[in-house]
Amino acid sequence: MTTATITGSMLIGSTALRGGDGDLYAVDPATGERLDPAFGGGGAAEVERACALAGQAFDAYRETGLEQRAAFLEAIAQNILDIGDALIQRAMAESGLPRARLEGERGRTVGQLRLFAQTVREGSWLDARIDPAQPERSPLPRADLRQRQIPLGPVAVFGASNFPLAFSVAGGDTASALAAGCPVVVKAHSAHPGTSELVGRAVQAAVASCGLPEGVFSLLFGAGSRIGTALVADPRIKAVGFTGSRRGGVALMRVAADRPEPIPVYAEMSSINPVFLMPAALAARADALGRAFVASLTMGAGQFCTNPGLLLAVDGPDLDRFLASAAEALDGSAALTMLTPGIHAAYDEGVAALTGNASVETLARGTACSGPNQARAALFATSAAAFLADPALQEEVFGSASLVVRCPDLATLRTVAERLEGQLTATLQMDADDAAAVAALLPVLERKAGRILANGWPTGVEVCHAMVHGGPFPATSDSRSTSVGTAAIKRFLRPVCYQDLPAALLPEALRDGNPLALWRRIDGALAKA
Amino acid sequence: MTTATITGSMLIGSTALRGGDGDLYAVDPATGERLDPAFGGGGAAEVERACALAGQAFDAYRETGLEQRAAFLEAIAQNILDIGDALIQRAMAESGLPRARLEGERGRTVGQLRLFAQTVREGSWLDARIDPAQPERSPLPRADLRQRQIPLGPVAVFGASNFPLAFSVAGGDTASALAAGCPVVVKAHSAHPGTSELVGRAVQAAVASCGLPEGVFSLLFGAGSRIGTALVADPRIKAVGFTGSRRGGVALMRVAADRPEPIPVYAEMSSINPVFLMPAALAARADALGRAFVASLTMGAGQFCTNPGLLLAVDGPDLDRFLASAAEALDGSAALTMLTPGIHAAYDEGVAALTGNASVETLARGTACSGPNQARAALFATSAAAFLADPALQEEVFGSASLVVRCPDLATLRTVAERLEGQLTATLQMDADDAAAVAALLPVLERKAGRILANGWPTGVEVCHAMVHGGPFPATSDSRSTSVGTAAIKRFLRPVCYQDLPAALLPEALRDGNPLALWRRIDGALAKA
Repeated sequence: MTTATITGSMLIGSTALRGGDGDLYAVDPATGERLDPAFGGGGAAEVERACALAGQAFDAYRETGLEQRAAFLEAIAQNILDIGDALIQRAMAESGLPRARLEGERGRTVGQLRLFAQTVREGSWLDARIDPAQPERSPLPRADLRQRQIPLGPVAVFGASNFPLAFSVAGGDTASALAAGCPVVVKAHSAHPGTSELVGRAVQAAVASCGLPEGVFSLLFGAGSRIGTALVADPRIKAVGFTGSRRGGVALMRVAADRPEPIPVYAEMSSINPVFLMPAALAARADALGRAFVASLTMGAGQFCTNPGLLLAVDGPDLDRFLASAAEALDGSAALTMLTPGIHAAYDEGVAALTGNASVETLARGTACSGPNQARAALFATSAAAFLADPALQEEVFGSASLVVRCPDLATLRTVAERLEGQLTATLQMDADDAAAVAALLPVLERKAGRILANGWPTGVEVCHAMVHGGPFPATSDSRSTSVGTAAIKRFLRPVCYQDLPAALLPEALRDGNPLALWRRIDGALAKA
Repeated sequence: MTTATITGSMLIGSTALRGGDGDLYAVDPATGERLDPAFGGGGAAEVERACALAGQAFDAYRETGLEQRAAFLEAIAQNILDIGDALIQRAMAESGLPRARLEGERGRTVGQLRLFAQTVREGSWLDARIDPAQPERSPLPRADLRQRQIPLGPVAVFGASNFPLAFSVAGGDTASALAAGCPVVVKAHSAHPGTSELVGRAVQAAVASCGLPEGVFSLLFGAGSRIGTALVADPRIKAVGFTGSRRGGVALMRVAADRPEPIPVYAEMSSINPVFLMPAALAARADALGRAFVASLTMGAGQFCTNPGLLLAVDGPDLDRFLASAAEALDGSAALTMLTPGIHAAYDEGVAALTGNASVETLARGTACSGPNQARAALFATSAAAFLADPALQEEVFGSASLVVRCPDLATLRTVAERLEGQLTATLQMDADDAAAVAALLPVLERKAGRILANGWPTGVEVCHAMVHGGPFPATSDSRSTSVGTAAIKRFLRPVCYQDLPAALLPEALRDGNPLALWRRIDGALAKA
């Protein structure tokens, strides 16, 4: 990488190209001012070109060796680091997020790419299976049957607003799709086009330096409702990764389902991440829990998919102590700048709806705002009966707002849990004496959420092998998957079986002698020999 | 099992219940006569009852131990065998299929259940992953994170007409869903209700003898457009298994996508299973290939999902020899009874459309029919140009009809392959001298098909670990899956992560000390310690 230039261009294969559809600017949410340069939005021609290149690149890219593909992911990581502070500065200006958060997020992004490089090298994701021929079997011989996973094809990735690095141009969706062997066409989020171009150029440079076909990566700007829809509808696109609103995700699911050839959509959309304050824990440490809860709620202005937007507890003096402690912490919490004017407006609207709801009590508000686009934290309470009667109370308010549901007893708390929509997470604050009640609740939580955590807070999603960042609809469009962690690679794969194929034509992963030293399933038994 | 009684009843949980919606009869396709008894079709009330029971059974059934669940699958297999010859006789009368085929299919069905029992016991499908806590990690400690797969929930299974045992009430979809821990509600195929009731009672008895909740299995009769749709729309149903027509599968995909909570549909629908006759193979053994092809084409009146409905070859004297040999074999092939009057009518319609197509030549027809509902085999030919110009020539004609596409050269053959829709299989007839041409074709075939086979025929699908019976749309609705073989269990699972959950509350699969002796991924590395 040389100097960090932001030109306002889309990156289509090896070229940089200014789109002709209007002048789009990033806005600094902390000041409301627009940031140079102008970005030209793309149209049908650019979608066509990017998808055509991706389609052309697919067969070559998917057969790159494991080492070459891993080195490519590592080159992207290094190129991102090499942009240096210009990337952090631009991301700060475009997102309103503080330096420390963005430096941490860069570390996460780079670490994620490197973890997928390790995953590619290890090769278990190929799920190689061999059932050797049984020529003497009676009444019929068995053929030689071998299976591996191959990538689905070019993937459309939609950058998320709330992780301008870790879930955007070279974020988790892109890293896992590239790891699987899929070319990627990114639709940049309009909130951080400059950050997107910088990172996009880092990927583009890695494609070139690794000698890969240019179509492995393209980056488009423009309105999601136009070029996003065109991208998902393009016949060369075979899967979609998206992080954003429920409305946006559902719209893409519809486009994908209506194609002549429907394709999978991995949309991470909406979750209120219920926290269950169990009685013994509440009795033992209501004050501390109240403070810790507010710290999780207000972190990053509450702009996390796993923000704790719902608390459930049995009503009584212990809950009152928790709420008093939380209200006190919230009263003193600073108003923080949100990512975009649009997100800020939606937050204020959501808070106003709760404030105006006759069955909802406002328990506390954070410090008043002192600048544009700031979120003033909010804590509300309602009864279990009111919550069960009004589905609107389950709607996500993206930002630092949370609703406490006062339940008359544990049975009602379980009923409320049973009526929740799908979630990314469910959190238990519990002590040893809560074990029996938690055991009764766990089956419900397993059906509702992708991750169940005890005595922590849902914000903070570890990138590792056992993570699940996913869950039943509407948390995601496909509960069979995770968008964080190494298992995310599975989203972009499908199995192919080879029957009696001559040895010389078999893919390396399936050859006799196991030249890639993979874990393979031979006649059903795992082996590495 | 005691005696094999067919009463015309649906099986809802532990009860048998005669539906009130009309009198449905099976028809013996060989005679056109209807078979006693009458079956009452179900309605909304029975769908509601079956789904409610399935929902109630789910939490208990999904936490059965691996051994208990495996024993249940084995009990179903034994109960099916214990029905004895009454099952074979009824299936023969309802399907027109010969005894040997149905006895073989029973063996396959029972073997499939037993293989899934082994798979359940082995436990790798739980994909257990543990990333131990790192309390000293800087700047942030890592929590203890553990992941396993859990079942999706109750599954709706639609019995297939063409495998009244192996892909019907206790067939592959049911076996894999039960193995995963999902209760099953079967919508019986109307062509073989008596066979369905007999097998359904075998499953029902196994549920009882194994002490499982009654809702683990129910069996409904009625029109797919009514109770089938209601079943897929029921909120307690979390996935669908279907084998049948493209129209039927696409209709169910639509219902599933339009639910408030969309769910996965595994529909195996339509495939013409292209066979590529490569030049050296054709030169070496055109006559033998022609005869072997007709044997595969006409087996079971061509009523297999993997029936070879398309042949591609370079035009010339070798192809002419192949066609002469195939035509001779086809001329003498007996007309065979098809499964239902409806399937027979659709076959005749498809053959008539090809016969009447000006760009299609009729090369040969089988022996004239001698009874009702018989399929007279048919072999057609067309040019590559005509094939590329007319998408209708890619439509599946279910039965023993096949179309040869004469290509001027190998480049055109590859172009035709590139234009094919998704397929279950792609077959290569090849000799050593064809290796280079096949290598150029393989990437296309991998993108188009779930199984690629050399020097065999696509009919005959081994039930094993490496099999893929699936493929890109419209072969199936979800190319990421297989409906045959042990990997089919993955269709009905989703991951759940447990973070810092107290040891006593962890599922057994994830406990320290590995009490189930599973292969697990510890910090990313497979281990059984």
